[in-house]
Amino acid sequence: MNPFEKSKLNRVKRGQNRAIYDEETIFNIIDAGFLAHVGYIYDGYPISIPMAYTREENSLYLHGSTGNRMMLSILESGKTSINITHLDGLVLARSGLHHSVNYRSVTLFGSVKKVIDDERKTVILEKTINQMVPNRWETLRTMIQEELNRTLILQIDIDHASAKVRAEGVNDEPDDINLPIWAGVIPVKQIALEPVPDENLIDGITTPKHITTYYEKHR
Amino acid sequence: MNPFEKSKLNRVKRGQNRAIYDEETIFNIIDAGFLAHVGYIYDGYPISIPMAYTREENSLYLHGSTGNRMMLSILESGKTSINITHLDGLVLARSGLHHSVNYRSVTLFGSVKKVIDDERKTVILEKTINQMVPNRWETLRTMIQEELNRTLILQIDIDHASAKVRAEGVNDEPDDINLPIWAGVIPVKQIALEPVPDENLIDGITTPKHITTYYEKHR
Repeated sequence: MNPFEKSKLNRVKRGQNRAIYDEETIFNIIDAGFLAHVGYIYDGYPISIPMAYTREENSLYLHGSTGNRMMLSILESGKTSINITHLDGLVLARSGLHHSVNYRSVTLFGSVKKVIDDERKTVILEKTINQMVPNRWETLRTMIQEELNRTLILQIDIDHASAKVRAEGVNDEPDDINLPIWAGVIPVKQIALEPVPDENLIDGITTPKHITTYYEKHR
Repeated sequence: MNPFEKSKLNRVKRGQNRAIYDEETIFNIIDAGFLAHVGYIYDGYPISIPMAYTREENSLYLHGSTGNRMMLSILESGKTSINITHLDGLVLARSGLHHSVNYRSVTLFGSVKKVIDDERKTVILEKTINQMVPNRWETLRTMIQEELNRTLILQIDIDHASAKVRAEGVNDEPDDINLPIWAGVIPVKQIALEPVPDENLIDGITTPKHITTYYEKHR
């Protein structure tokens, strides 16, 4: 089955003109971030929690403590839904109703299993750290066995997914265009400020290239 | 009952040292944003969808089309859970395990009801638009009855809520402090870029004060 085909689950009901089902768009949106809202059910409530992730092929990977309530819950239920959204702009129309936002968003539905193999777990953690800041992992102290033992890693195989994207200007009612009201888009984005070194850095440690590269790219 | 007291639902399991239950902190985090992840259950999946919101006293308000699947679902079930998270920084430690993020996050559990009264609905929409960009509503074309009729507004009374906040530097293992590895925090924030006026603005419409004020505050 192609997880990017329309199904009852991933069919976008509202704003169907914004729905996109192709794999490349979906993976690009996933790969543009590192924090996802992961859903689980507790006491009948649909709770969502922001979690770091990384992607490999058709799977997302989450990690946490072996006692993490959310992770244990989705492992037990065997499934979850995950939303990843990037806000790109405020769309300010001439009427309240047509106010909107520009964004790129993916909602996916997946099956959950535990990653057991230590070598695989280490690879996933490396990818997760590098998803946050590229080339960081290679500079770190090597993981020790006890840390690996304390870390639960879940693999979410994407069963269904769809993207929604809005990337355009104001869509006002034709009758409103001639009103003396300012309308337009305020683009927004997330930026990095200057890195703040830990006050306990040992002498001679300068800001490494992967940090300055990240800052230059996101400032 | 005080919704900000600890309960089975809102008790923060992991990182309990970061859990905060006071109303002022929780309201400040809510009021700092305008997009929340709202949870609902569909086909056994805990789905979360980003939605615009506003707050009044102990309630959040969502709006959407009268056919919005998520809104109809939480109205029917009578409850939802909502997460609002602001990312403030990347915390880059000397070991992978101690990588983290700085953030302000609220998870709340609420009862859902429909707002019926047109006057109340209009007040909520005004607050929602102004939550996105302060003082915008006053400049807009007045809502018409048909638009109000097409708009479903839900009131989420907060039954339980808690905040989690991390706002600090790197917490490395004591043994790792002397390693020749750069560690520190990269602060991140969401900014506004220069407003892009709609190309169909009528002659003589200049950028109004509420837009320049927003831009100056968020650039």
